[in-house]
Amino acid sequence: MVRKKTESMKDRKKQVLERLKELGENICGQIEKGIFPWLEMPSRSTSNIQYDKKIRQYVLGDKTIKRVTRNVRHIRPFTQLVWLGDMVNMLIRQGKTSTLRDMFYMSQAYEVDFTDQAESDDIVTDLESLIKFAREDFNVFPEERSAIYANLTIEYTVPRYEGKRLNLTVHPDGVIIGPALASAEFIDTDAEMVLCIEKGAMFTRFLEEEVHKKFKAVLIHTAGQAPRATRHIIHRLNRELNLPVYIFCDADPWGMHIAQVIISGSANAAHLRELTTPDAKWAGVWASDIVKYQLPSERLKELDLKRLKELERDPRYREELWQREIQVFYDIKKKAEQEAFSRYGLTKIVEDYLPKRMEEIKSY
Amino acid sequence: MVRKKTESMKDRKKQVLERLKELGENICGQIEKGIFPWLEMPSRSTSNIQYDKKIRQYVLGDKTIKRVTRNVRHIRPFTQLVWLGDMVNMLIRQGKTSTLRDMFYMSQAYEVDFTDQAESDDIVTDLESLIKFAREDFNVFPEERSAIYANLTIEYTVPRYEGKRLNLTVHPDGVIIGPALASAEFIDTDAEMVLCIEKGAMFTRFLEEEVHKKFKAVLIHTAGQAPRATRHIIHRLNRELNLPVYIFCDADPWGMHIAQVIISGSANAAHLRELTTPDAKWAGVWASDIVKYQLPSERLKELDLKRLKELERDPRYREELWQREIQVFYDIKKKAEQEAFSRYGLTKIVEDYLPKRMEEIKSY
Repeated sequence: MVRKKTESMKDRKKQVLERLKELGENICGQIEKGIFPWLEMPSRSTSNIQYDKKIRQYVLGDKTIKRVTRNVRHIRPFTQLVWLGDMVNMLIRQGKTSTLRDMFYMSQAYEVDFTDQAESDDIVTDLESLIKFAREDFNVFPEERSAIYANLTIEYTVPRYEGKRLNLTVHPDGVIIGPALASAEFIDTDAEMVLCIEKGAMFTRFLEEEVHKKFKAVLIHTAGQAPRATRHIIHRLNRELNLPVYIFCDADPWGMHIAQVIISGSANAAHLRELTTPDAKWAGVWASDIVKYQLPSERLKELDLKRLKELERDPRYREELWQREIQVFYDIKKKAEQEAFSRYGLTKIVEDYLPKRMEEIKSY
Repeated sequence: MVRKKTESMKDRKKQVLERLKELGENICGQIEKGIFPWLEMPSRSTSNIQYDKKIRQYVLGDKTIKRVTRNVRHIRPFTQLVWLGDMVNMLIRQGKTSTLRDMFYMSQAYEVDFTDQAESDDIVTDLESLIKFAREDFNVFPEERSAIYANLTIEYTVPRYEGKRLNLTVHPDGVIIGPALASAEFIDTDAEMVLCIEKGAMFTRFLEEEVHKKFKAVLIHTAGQAPRATRHIIHRLNRELNLPVYIFCDADPWGMHIAQVIISGSANAAHLRELTTPDAKWAGVWASDIVKYQLPSERLKELDLKRLKELERDPRYREELWQREIQVFYDIKKKAEQEAFSRYGLTKIVEDYLPKRMEEIKSY
């Protein structure tokens, strides 16, 4: 059953359009008054990015920057930002989506002079922090896609499908988390938790073993590092449906960080709140599981150990569980993949490991 | 409307089980007769791989190899192969799927001594060439997944979904081509062609611009190099539904080769026939399109030119179109991505480029 709803996805698009209108009116007003138009936005420089313990994610500090067209060096990023606002306005009104790469190429038709895609991506992030909406809200999506499988009925808000409903058990390979799914409303579900899974093999295993029924779970395949649209869906499942979230990744520093980014976000999305799920739990595969289950493993390489050192010092890794498991990694100097459970046959992970872990994780 | 059907997907699984039974009976029979069991299979060494101009794909020659357990060096791969046959039998009977990585780990529980995954992958390929079915037919899938969007109704053959039908316009982000889709029957469609698209951005563009309606097309996102399940679906759409297939990739040697592998396969699948579509056409983006449409482009790098040289000499690239475009690449020394059309706005590629190309391609 659906418990609460924060705000509708359609309302968000409307709000983006309103913010863009305000942005345009502000600039036009300045020009009409005969002053060089300028903008103010939060600074995204590393000195202004802090880890906020209370809300448990990276946030931007109080520093702001001004883009003043009187300054010749500012004209270029200012113009790029205004052009982007225009494009985004068009995208939303026409109900179309685009990618970061598309935006870079589109700019060339308008002689908006982006040196490379890194520069155009940066302006997209500027627009996010200026209007305080994620780029998914203004229809700019990455290419990577992950999948979801759940007894969850959604209602589309995209054109041509608006009002149509779909139950996410419809396709046994899972349903793609693309622009249409990311912007759909949650209508009804009997799910009681969300399980996020790094690898496709384990996602398929969970699905074939009916974990979605046995554990009343929404299954999400992150396909490696979870794309932003997927992190947004996880956030919404947690907030709108009050579902606890558990994350399963490979037992190595890279897997740990996939979980951590779902939980507390990344430094370059410090200006956003809708991509994090601070109450989500890293549920495995832990370093200690390698020992406990005698999983097939490999030695940690130089690069893995270097990464582990970085994580150890990262403020997001202060909690006991993380620190404990980092120490186990140092002790055993081994890593393992999720598929390593196949050593015990295809069902071990679902019949033994998963129920034990779900019991255990409650105490963390 | 569905026009013809070659054989049902369920029949294929039955045939795999029969072949496995024969394989087992053969070995048991040999043992009962008191002789060291042996097997004979087509040699997959490069000297036995030839390009067959008539069927337009790589094929294996007449050379065979024998695995004789009297020879101590053969015992290991022989045992691995028999073990794999046992696992595959179990997978099919239980209606479960697995991945190449899973198979490698599963072997460890049985003390089947694979040195690494390359070795276990190799034995999977041995089993393919021995029983003459693709590993998808015995439920071993890769992780990568691509997507399909079409007014095409399918009927699942996988357990729990058997007999259920789905129209592939059900989800506006496209439907994942995973184990369940790859093994589904085609029931009904009004489609008249198949368009394969390398990049997700262009797939989404086609979908939002309703190319599936305007061109009565099945849209397939290959997600880079098409995974085998996707190549199999393309083959089946061509064979079972008589649909012509057109492939759109980036304008560079790597994009050309994505098209070529869909058309005539790869050397390491020379023992299979169901992964190729020799009548499929490479429809763009051509090197000559970079000039014609003044697409934003980059210079060909050293690595690109080296690859181009290889393609020029490859027997699969003998036809006029390929040779002509390779020459254009040499002349202009440039490459372009599919998204480069966004330079002309989001609709140019659908409203101008695509109809012109579909007209033009008929003469190739």
